[in-house]
Amino acid sequence: MRACVLGSAAGGGFPQWNCACPNCRDLRAGRPGLRARTQDSVAVSEGGERWALLNASPDVLAQLARYAPLHPRGPRVSPLAAVVLTNGDLDHCLGLFCLRESTPLAVYATNAVRRGLVERNALCRTLARFEGHVAFRALELGRPVALCDAAGEPLGLEVVARPVPGKPPLHLAGDPPSPEDNVGLWVRGCGGGEALAYVPGAGALGDYVAHLEGAGCVLFDGTFWSDDELVRLGLGRARAAEMAHLPVGGPGGSLAALASLGARRKLFTHVNNTNPALREGAGERRAIERAGWALAEDGLEVILE
Amino acid sequence: MRACVLGSAAGGGFPQWNCACPNCRDLRAGRPGLRARTQDSVAVSEGGERWALLNASPDVLAQLARYAPLHPRGPRVSPLAAVVLTNGDLDHCLGLFCLRESTPLAVYATNAVRRGLVERNALCRTLARFEGHVAFRALELGRPVALCDAAGEPLGLEVVARPVPGKPPLHLAGDPPSPEDNVGLWVRGCGGGEALAYVPGAGALGDYVAHLEGAGCVLFDGTFWSDDELVRLGLGRARAAEMAHLPVGGPGGSLAALASLGARRKLFTHVNNTNPALREGAGERRAIERAGWALAEDGLEVILE
Repeated sequence: MRACVLGSAAGGGFPQWNCACPNCRDLRAGRPGLRARTQDSVAVSEGGERWALLNASPDVLAQLARYAPLHPRGPRVSPLAAVVLTNGDLDHCLGLFCLRESTPLAVYATNAVRRGLVERNALCRTLARFEGHVAFRALELGRPVALCDAAGEPLGLEVVARPVPGKPPLHLAGDPPSPEDNVGLWVRGCGGGEALAYVPGAGALGDYVAHLEGAGCVLFDGTFWSDDELVRLGLGRARAAEMAHLPVGGPGGSLAALASLGARRKLFTHVNNTNPALREGAGERRAIERAGWALAEDGLEVILE
Repeated sequence: MRACVLGSAAGGGFPQWNCACPNCRDLRAGRPGLRARTQDSVAVSEGGERWALLNASPDVLAQLARYAPLHPRGPRVSPLAAVVLTNGDLDHCLGLFCLRESTPLAVYATNAVRRGLVERNALCRTLARFEGHVAFRALELGRPVALCDAAGEPLGLEVVARPVPGKPPLHLAGDPPSPEDNVGLWVRGCGGGEALAYVPGAGALGDYVAHLEGAGCVLFDGTFWSDDELVRLGLGRARAAEMAHLPVGGPGGSLAALASLGARRKLFTHVNNTNPALREGAGERRAIERAGWALAEDGLEVILE
């Protein structure tokens, strides 16, 4: 199975349009050691002919334009066949509306995520231009599903969605929480082989961590380095925990908890523009690298064997 | 007043992610005479300090990143203060959700467009994170309005919205049509001076055409060259007229009707990826240029005097 990290930033991207924090400012000024990142998404394929996206970011059009294996093969014939969502956050769903131009797509989501999207937003009708345009299919927690295109043709990929502590998206705040609000995805070729474990949002550790062990590649929530990152920079009042993101750093952080994880490749993704680890050579970045982890980067390809 | 064409393509952009029509194919292959275009939007400013967008395209983040006058001036201090919408089409509104990161914005739209967006989509709650986050204000047909930021500070810009034949967005098809569904915008500095007339979607001629006369710059619907453009390319069944776009070419087209328009600068924008005029040197492009018109391009700056 092939995977390509199309985007590795948290909501807003890096740099973020309205942000002049030290990271965003220095990146815009062209200082070395910082790389632009679009919003979190991964493309996966068994064989390279037909592809599925894990999340559809608001930057999806730029992401598809940059990655030649996803360019169309004929008039309105796209290799993109399916999208799998981890939650209903806008940085993971908004791209669906950028993909509305009549190419049939299958969209896999938990029932909670699908309902929040389809039943609450008239915009979704733009994804139902004709019978078979966008086919929503249910992700059931813990149950493997063989991905198919909108017409039911198998893509040779199997996905398991597992619940990960999170919360409903901001625009559905107040809705009763559900274990279906936020999932991680374990993706592998149907013939077996290594799994890609993709957990771009994690508010805490949990049962799912045991399933990261032995993965060919783990992509894990790297949003914030510290719980009070936004507060200390004067950019917001919310702590990482309130936004359902376990920070990477500190004694209770994900790096300490997952440092010894037995996975071949271990990458942080969904990195917020304020995260000090974005800066090459920074102490936080070195700590990540010393632990055998790395930051995912846009365009990074991974082969799962 | 300064204006910058941030995007000059119709919905989907050029090239379009799922399209391999001759234009899209040749642009991807790097053949000369074709230029990439993002989706239709214009930035305007009186003085260059604070800006308003005319439409918020799905490509807004890439558009803001490319245009230095719209980069933030301090931590979460953006020069972008307002957005004015011409209709509720996704290629004009989706960018609002990309601008959700807590910078206060004023959004000007007709009541019909605002209702279709805000009352029918839970997603819009992401634009109401705090009191004064996104302030919707009504555009009344034919009535000048002085644009202000979300806090009510004037931006030195005056806008008049005039009805232009169109239709409700695809996702609200079936709703009763209203003259508020689609408008053109006439924008000038509050101190007077030349107007920018911005009519990116026009299903037919009408009373509004008289108001194009004498504008410093006209940006007009250049979506399709011919009524059956999509049908002949085998890309769709809809004719331009059904999609509420008056074609540029032919005896009944906008070029013939507006060739002698007395405006200083006359540009077609919102150009679909299939339009043969996208190709430099093509007969259709030469016909546009012979008539004293041109195609708008991403990044094109216009000074209104």
